[in-house]
Amino acid sequence: MEYPSKLIEDAVNEIAKLPGIGKKTALRMALHLLRANEERTQLLADSLVNLRTKTQYCTHCHNIADAPVCAICSSSKRDKQTVCVVENTTDLIAIENTSQFNGLYHVLGGVISPLEGVSPHDLNIDSLINRVKDLSLDIKEIILALSATMEGDTTSFFITKKLRDYPVKITTIARGVPIGSELEYTDEITLGRSILGRKAYEH
Amino acid sequence: MEYPSKLIEDAVNEIAKLPGIGKKTALRMALHLLRANEERTQLLADSLVNLRTKTQYCTHCHNIADAPVCAICSSSKRDKQTVCVVENTTDLIAIENTSQFNGLYHVLGGVISPLEGVSPHDLNIDSLINRVKDLSLDIKEIILALSATMEGDTTSFFITKKLRDYPVKITTIARGVPIGSELEYTDEITLGRSILGRKAYEH
Repeated sequence: MEYPSKLIEDAVNEIAKLPGIGKKTALRMALHLLRANEERTQLLADSLVNLRTKTQYCTHCHNIADAPVCAICSSSKRDKQTVCVVENTTDLIAIENTSQFNGLYHVLGGVISPLEGVSPHDLNIDSLINRVKDLSLDIKEIILALSATMEGDTTSFFITKKLRDYPVKITTIARGVPIGSELEYTDEITLGRSILGRKAYEH
Repeated sequence: MEYPSKLIEDAVNEIAKLPGIGKKTALRMALHLLRANEERTQLLADSLVNLRTKTQYCTHCHNIADAPVCAICSSSKRDKQTVCVVENTTDLIAIENTSQFNGLYHVLGGVISPLEGVSPHDLNIDSLINRVKDLSLDIKEIILALSATMEGDTTSFFITKKLRDYPVKITTIARGVPIGSELEYTDEITLGRSILGRKAYEH
């Protein structure tokens, strides 16, 4: 595509590096900024730079934080005996939005993936072990909330093995037929697992 | 949605003001920037601010430009007797990408829309009339390439009326069945117009 201005071209190329954004969408965004108030662009640019340069990571759970300890880890209302292990902050936010979990988190920063060159050492697994080891923290349960993929399962297996010798209960989130979906459209593996993982009917 | 950090929240809110971007996509972009090199964010932010603060508009055709006169208007290879009137730079780029037009452009900056409070005075219509008036420019044809909407048609009608007394040919781009689409799925108005606007078969 030919652009009428080098400045537009630069902006489009930079915007199009964001995930899920193609050149056409990037151009629409660039032209939108050109039409809007100059202040808007400045605010956007500043917020991005601030995000990248000022964000900290919680020293306990590795969640993104505004302080050395994140709001969840420092809250007195959370159940500190239960730790939910997640892949990244997006998953943490997704679980927080369910309002069904009141414990702490541990953000791994990824999952073990030999194909992408991610080994256990690249993840925050050692610090998880250290949290469990530290008896003053009194962690009773580790919930593994990783994706239902080969990589997620491998990571869950690895963590379970590492934690075998500690007096902590290890659970994983339930796998099964998603709420609202019809049986005939559910894939075989999910359906199979949901039969194997059947639960007593609550009545 | 609750965010773990005020910085993330600010960035998500600013990104989500872009057209076609919701909070979820904005969050994905923000987390992507956090994972990527710090330089990447700086480049993106700089390109946006540069775009907004340094972009100029061509004094002839109002296209976005790096200089007072844009590359198209200053090119010696373009046919300066034909001027294609477009709504905005996006449409100009779309026409340029067809490689079917070698004349000059005139960017209106919008179309007449009483509902959105856009009157002829908000658009670059007067400067178009002045270009046609200026006999030294020797403009022979004005092609109206506006959207096939009520607003586009109104604007075309307005411009045609304004130019009635000048010795210039006024044309509009062809309306009809799009290339590659089947007749039975073409809407009635388009099909009706394509019959009214039928052309002699070239053989």
